[in-house]
Amino acid sequence: MTTYQKNFTTDEYRRRIAKTRAAMSKRGLDAIFVTDPSNMSWLTGYDGWSFYVFQGVVLTHDGDPIWWGRAMDALGARRTVFMDSDDQIRGYDDTFVQNPDKHPMADLGALLAEAGLEAARIGVELDNYYYSAKAHAELSAALPKATLDDATGLVNWQRAVKSEREIEYMRRAARITEAMHDRIFEIAEPGLRKNELIAEIYATGIRGRDGYWGDYPAIVPMAPSGMDATAPHLTWDDRPMQTGEATFFEIAGAHRRYQCPQSRTLFLGKVPQKYRDAEAAVLDAIDAGLEQAKPGKQAQDIANAFNATLNKAGFEKDSRCGYAIGISYPPDWGERTISFRRGDTTVLEAGMTFHFMPALWLDDGGLEITEPILITETGHECLCKTPRDLWVKA
Amino acid sequence: MTTYQKNFTTDEYRRRIAKTRAAMSKRGLDAIFVTDPSNMSWLTGYDGWSFYVFQGVVLTHDGDPIWWGRAMDALGARRTVFMDSDDQIRGYDDTFVQNPDKHPMADLGALLAEAGLEAARIGVELDNYYYSAKAHAELSAALPKATLDDATGLVNWQRAVKSEREIEYMRRAARITEAMHDRIFEIAEPGLRKNELIAEIYATGIRGRDGYWGDYPAIVPMAPSGMDATAPHLTWDDRPMQTGEATFFEIAGAHRRYQCPQSRTLFLGKVPQKYRDAEAAVLDAIDAGLEQAKPGKQAQDIANAFNATLNKAGFEKDSRCGYAIGISYPPDWGERTISFRRGDTTVLEAGMTFHFMPALWLDDGGLEITEPILITETGHECLCKTPRDLWVKA
Repeated sequence: MTTYQKNFTTDEYRRRIAKTRAAMSKRGLDAIFVTDPSNMSWLTGYDGWSFYVFQGVVLTHDGDPIWWGRAMDALGARRTVFMDSDDQIRGYDDTFVQNPDKHPMADLGALLAEAGLEAARIGVELDNYYYSAKAHAELSAALPKATLDDATGLVNWQRAVKSEREIEYMRRAARITEAMHDRIFEIAEPGLRKNELIAEIYATGIRGRDGYWGDYPAIVPMAPSGMDATAPHLTWDDRPMQTGEATFFEIAGAHRRYQCPQSRTLFLGKVPQKYRDAEAAVLDAIDAGLEQAKPGKQAQDIANAFNATLNKAGFEKDSRCGYAIGISYPPDWGERTISFRRGDTTVLEAGMTFHFMPALWLDDGGLEITEPILITETGHECLCKTPRDLWVKA
Repeated sequence: MTTYQKNFTTDEYRRRIAKTRAAMSKRGLDAIFVTDPSNMSWLTGYDGWSFYVFQGVVLTHDGDPIWWGRAMDALGARRTVFMDSDDQIRGYDDTFVQNPDKHPMADLGALLAEAGLEAARIGVELDNYYYSAKAHAELSAALPKATLDDATGLVNWQRAVKSEREIEYMRRAARITEAMHDRIFEIAEPGLRKNELIAEIYATGIRGRDGYWGDYPAIVPMAPSGMDATAPHLTWDDRPMQTGEATFFEIAGAHRRYQCPQSRTLFLGKVPQKYRDAEAAVLDAIDAGLEQAKPGKQAQDIANAFNATLNKAGFEKDSRCGYAIGISYPPDWGERTISFRRGDTTVLEAGMTFHFMPALWLDDGGLEITEPILITETGHECLCKTPRDLWVKA
């Protein structure tokens, strides 16, 4: 029988833990409790769609982390985490699940007390997914002598610079993204129902490419047309594609939970001059932004160069134009740390990966031409080789 | 140009709002702020993958609800909500997005104060998705004279009894679920890589059936085999299906966000007696449970009948065996209200819909044979006609 393949070596997990502990020390934290599934996975390897119930990873300054969650999911933890001792995997009773009378945080409080953390300074992800306001209140009540500090983003920031193995997974995901875009260009045509198109996009992405299997993207594929494309996050229905409309495709290939998002826009029919103008402006602005994408520059340098070039051509974009990417789970494929926008002074380092996302939403449609990039020792690498222009099928 | 089709009439949204206001009155609430995307959609029609940033719906006792979220998503709100006035759609500046220096709840606080709710009693979803501990602290700080009460589940409970139109959507989703299971049985065979199989499941589900298009399921399809199937929530990789292993398929067809989950188990090769015994026990126990599925019975009656029958056959299940279903967004397709388990005394009513989910996880695999059901005036209806047995391909 074949078994679940670990995504990283135990050594790599230990390096991540050491890095995280250094950040904990700087903040004076005795322990952290992380609920973000991406952080849980990055620290331990845990992989499962169980984040709809309360769960998390406890990390102190000694020994291996503890995976804590619903008892039935402890079995999935055993099959995916690097820790080989069952003591590091702790499950709570099913009666705690979605039961207003019993909160799982009472169980976690007892576990933390048992681990000697009754009066400790514990970092929690106050502003992250899957840690509710009630969970925080219950955990505070269960540990009245402890100090619960806001450690939102502490682990996310450790993830910014990727290892060789992580970059390899991002590159595999990039091959899958290319395959998805190839398939879109191949089949999109007037009359094709949007759900039929999305079905093909999903199937292509999950089949994968070059022997690399596709994992699920942290955001579903989006492909709005015409006026729907003036809004960025509408999902599909069964209306057919039409001549005279632009459709943007915001999709991501994924491999072993690493996400490589990239958008392209397809126009069916004769392209209005307005779209050609927007295309030219965006392509110039992308070039200007990418010139700044190298070690030593700041995140805002990319945004400022991009915006200055775009404004010169008479276009404006008031939202951020990029964010860090890597391992992720729904509902977001971003790392929620670095943003390409004015004021973000984070210094770029080799090994960081971003979605440079200079989408323009126009008054009657959208134009998204975006690039997932890796900062290299000397500059940057565009992870996908997808042709960078406004696609047209006449 | 075709336009986004509203899923329900304005009258239906107004009925839902009236029902919700009655529940608010009972709890002495002047307003509620709901962040659960399912609750947002149920109250207003809002539909978009934007729940990775802060957003919500504000409902008072007067006038239409207010959709509040990221400015770029306000455009998607305009295209999907029933409210026709732009005053009811309020967007915040993009600099609030994932920025540790500026929290969107400051913007919401100002909006609520402007709406006369500065010193009001406001219900918030303290223990729901997408309302973080930090969001609650920031909103409390922005409205020091207001009382923020726990209204977790208040809207979810109003959703329990479905309208005719909702039931129609559930039935369409059920047709799609059947199509997905048909496809699984058709193509599953030793050597088929799991990601290839999942690609087909996804594509079949999104193409839909009988002219009903498939929406995205709130949980990805799961199809673990052998020892991986002892854990309930592991997702796929590229290992091939093998003779001598059971694989369970936990999937849902979805239509206009309504979810119809159903699981089946397929054994490749000669079925061990243990699986036959488990199958017989589960089928008997399902019959015993379904006998209790009628108006006037309690949720726990189904669980008790199911468990008693299962125990008699020498099997045990210590987790709940069902939950309410309907409209849903990731990460969960359940409504998080009623559970089939001992102690849940909710009285069943016609129009309620459930996933009767008597999964058994054995020491070397899993057996999931489950039924999505509708409580009718006289009993129940199994929404899917999928054959109810352990599937075998020799």
